[in-house]
Amino acid sequence: MVDIATRVYNHRWQIDPIVRSLIDTDFYKLLMCQSVFRHRPATQVTFSLINRTKSIRLADLIDEGELREQLDYARGLRLTRGESTWLRGNTFYGKRQMFRPDFMEWFEAFRLPPYHLEKRDGQYELTFEGNWPEVMMWEIPALAILMELRSRAVLRGMKRFELQVLYARAMTRVWEKIERLKRIEGLKIADFGTRRRHGFLWQDWCVQAMVEGLGDAAQGGSFTGTSNCLIAMRRDLEAVGTNAHELPMVMAALAETDAELRQAPYRVLEDWHEEHDGNLRIILPDTYGTKGFLQRAPDWLAAWTGIRIDSGNPFESAETAISWWQSRGEDPAKKLVIFSDGLDVAQIEALHAQFRGRVKVSFGWGTLLTNDFRGLVEEDELSPFSLVCKAVAANGRPTVKLSDNPEKATGPAEEIARYRRVFDVGAQTASPVVV
Amino acid sequence: MVDIATRVYNHRWQIDPIVRSLIDTDFYKLLMCQSVFRHRPATQVTFSLINRTKSIRLADLIDEGELREQLDYARGLRLTRGESTWLRGNTFYGKRQMFRPDFMEWFEAFRLPPYHLEKRDGQYELTFEGNWPEVMMWEIPALAILMELRSRAVLRGMKRFELQVLYARAMTRVWEKIERLKRIEGLKIADFGTRRRHGFLWQDWCVQAMVEGLGDAAQGGSFTGTSNCLIAMRRDLEAVGTNAHELPMVMAALAETDAELRQAPYRVLEDWHEEHDGNLRIILPDTYGTKGFLQRAPDWLAAWTGIRIDSGNPFESAETAISWWQSRGEDPAKKLVIFSDGLDVAQIEALHAQFRGRVKVSFGWGTLLTNDFRGLVEEDELSPFSLVCKAVAANGRPTVKLSDNPEKATGPAEEIARYRRVFDVGAQTASPVVV
Repeated sequence: MVDIATRVYNHRWQIDPIVRSLIDTDFYKLLMCQSVFRHRPATQVTFSLINRTKSIRLADLIDEGELREQLDYARGLRLTRGESTWLRGNTFYGKRQMFRPDFMEWFEAFRLPPYHLEKRDGQYELTFEGNWPEVMMWEIPALAILMELRSRAVLRGMKRFELQVLYARAMTRVWEKIERLKRIEGLKIADFGTRRRHGFLWQDWCVQAMVEGLGDAAQGGSFTGTSNCLIAMRRDLEAVGTNAHELPMVMAALAETDAELRQAPYRVLEDWHEEHDGNLRIILPDTYGTKGFLQRAPDWLAAWTGIRIDSGNPFESAETAISWWQSRGEDPAKKLVIFSDGLDVAQIEALHAQFRGRVKVSFGWGTLLTNDFRGLVEEDELSPFSLVCKAVAANGRPTVKLSDNPEKATGPAEEIARYRRVFDVGAQTASPVVV
Repeated sequence: MVDIATRVYNHRWQIDPIVRSLIDTDFYKLLMCQSVFRHRPATQVTFSLINRTKSIRLADLIDEGELREQLDYARGLRLTRGESTWLRGNTFYGKRQMFRPDFMEWFEAFRLPPYHLEKRDGQYELTFEGNWPEVMMWEIPALAILMELRSRAVLRGMKRFELQVLYARAMTRVWEKIERLKRIEGLKIADFGTRRRHGFLWQDWCVQAMVEGLGDAAQGGSFTGTSNCLIAMRRDLEAVGTNAHELPMVMAALAETDAELRQAPYRVLEDWHEEHDGNLRIILPDTYGTKGFLQRAPDWLAAWTGIRIDSGNPFESAETAISWWQSRGEDPAKKLVIFSDGLDVAQIEALHAQFRGRVKVSFGWGTLLTNDFRGLVEEDELSPFSLVCKAVAANGRPTVKLSDNPEKATGPAEEIARYRRVFDVGAQTASPVVV
């Protein structure tokens, strides 16, 4: 039976919104936002959308009016009562009241700030300027909107059964990956795929498939949760994630001297150390080169729970971390290593085989979980690409990221050179950035 | 929005019926029924369900209570007003009022007659006895019910996403077949897959995929229609089909002498000749051996529109038909050859390549369109199998079918021997019966 009221209601839709909730975002954004709100609320930042895959001309594919409608819709969002209750009442990482009342009050009144949009050379220049805690909240919805508008643009011309078969193929692919993952004994893996997902419904499907296939870790399974707060809330899963490059990048840009610059990445983690413990004390060491970061790290950092490896050769980086812990008198077997850079099943298998037992291994699986449509349409128009939304300036100064892969470096060339000198970054191996 | 009334209504279902309409059957059943109703209404027949794939122990798989519920549900069905209107008002094979008013009156009052069900050796013995026009109507619903109950039994233990991925895989497979068929220039193909379908919804999906992929022949596409009347009505497609083995089998069983027996297959077609013309004049020559049938055929049969090839080597049978037409002074290029025996895409491609241009080629694609789940579940428990429902006796005498493949022969051994002698059937090549 058709529910007539629903059909009539749907007729009135002006758009089919992509981002429908302020918590359709990564959990670590909220953790970082709270930290920034406390320590650096007045910092002026600029975030900018950067498409690292220049061959995909987003401004030719996506209608500007549609993009504005979606961004405007997101600007109209407010935290709902249920979302607020969940954030205030839920246990995250075993801790109640992870979000402090003053932050929650701010968040309940929050709306996404204005955006600036221009077309240039077939790409969109989408930037956000203002107070750091507000601007940073654009990152995930902006990416998710662009990614899904691109999917919609490609799918627009397809007929009904073609679409159904496309999704049938994509589902089969995800399931085959899950079936392979099932065979990895002791696996721990989470969904980190919000930002570059094919679409919201698709991410939601993938997460549910992970739950059914691998089992929720809360019931002894391998699936440890999702970075997406909305999906975590709706599906009663763990929301997972800790911190990201934007913290050291902004702090580094604010440094007045080279000496301060050199200390900036540790200053960030001092704040974090004070606020969090346990599984939230995860080092993200690659912003200005993993090796140097660890060599110069204070001893209290070696006592942290683990490390997240997000660029460079992950096998080498994990070995580096193990050696570092050993050199600091720590037992690597008690440490957590989270791999999260462009993972797919074969690499997950290989990393797990190499490190299982030596450290606690965990995976944050992103784009190739929630957006693997490679080869499924003609001219491969649905394959994922490398879209990021980064802090590009703080209080008027440019930010810099080096990472362990020079292809992922961002910032003005002369600043990159200065950072490489200050952080004593030697030769790096470039590898192509796929997603 | 959930439609509460629908949910509450669904709660009351005692069963989820498999056959929900008396026209969820093959079109040729109705054509044959009308012919039988006119010429032989009082003939007493027995139809029996035979599982030629003994390794599949249906009585172990399918609960007897469930089977009885489904059969009883089918017995409760009556032709609806809309179905009656469609049968009376529609144009079939270009002809209005294909079904005569006296037949329609009878059909409007019709219910499926009683059945007799027993278990033996892990199989169900399901038989139907009574007047031919009534009993014959059980064939397709009985097969569809058993096939779908078997699917349901195998699928019962599967989880939600497993099921979704199973269907995703099956859809992908059907679509890949359709994409191959798309490339065959001048293809004409119909769905003949009702009787051994995976399930009703699945057949309906496959038909719609054929329409989208190949295009409706009414609009210049390659898909010429479906044998399923209900789907044809709902999807506004051609209902297709002509006649089957049961006509010559029953007529042969009624023959009093060997001479009458020898003439029986032609007697059937005399009736048909009188009732139908054009594309409904299709010879099904293999009941007692194609070669002998054609050699002894009267000349008026050579003037018929075409031939359907349903057993034996289809390449050889089509060549036999071509030679026969030539020997009778007919132009094969004007004749229709319908292939319908256990087809899949590779064979369709090969047959089309060999016969296109020499005759008008057409395909009736059955089980491997609507039930190809081979290899998709563990132990291949969903692969199709060879279930038939045949006339086994007429007025107390056993029926016999020889066909062009001795593996498909049915009837008592001594009667088979007699028929082979009477119809002068020489050596035959056995080939395994898959579907």
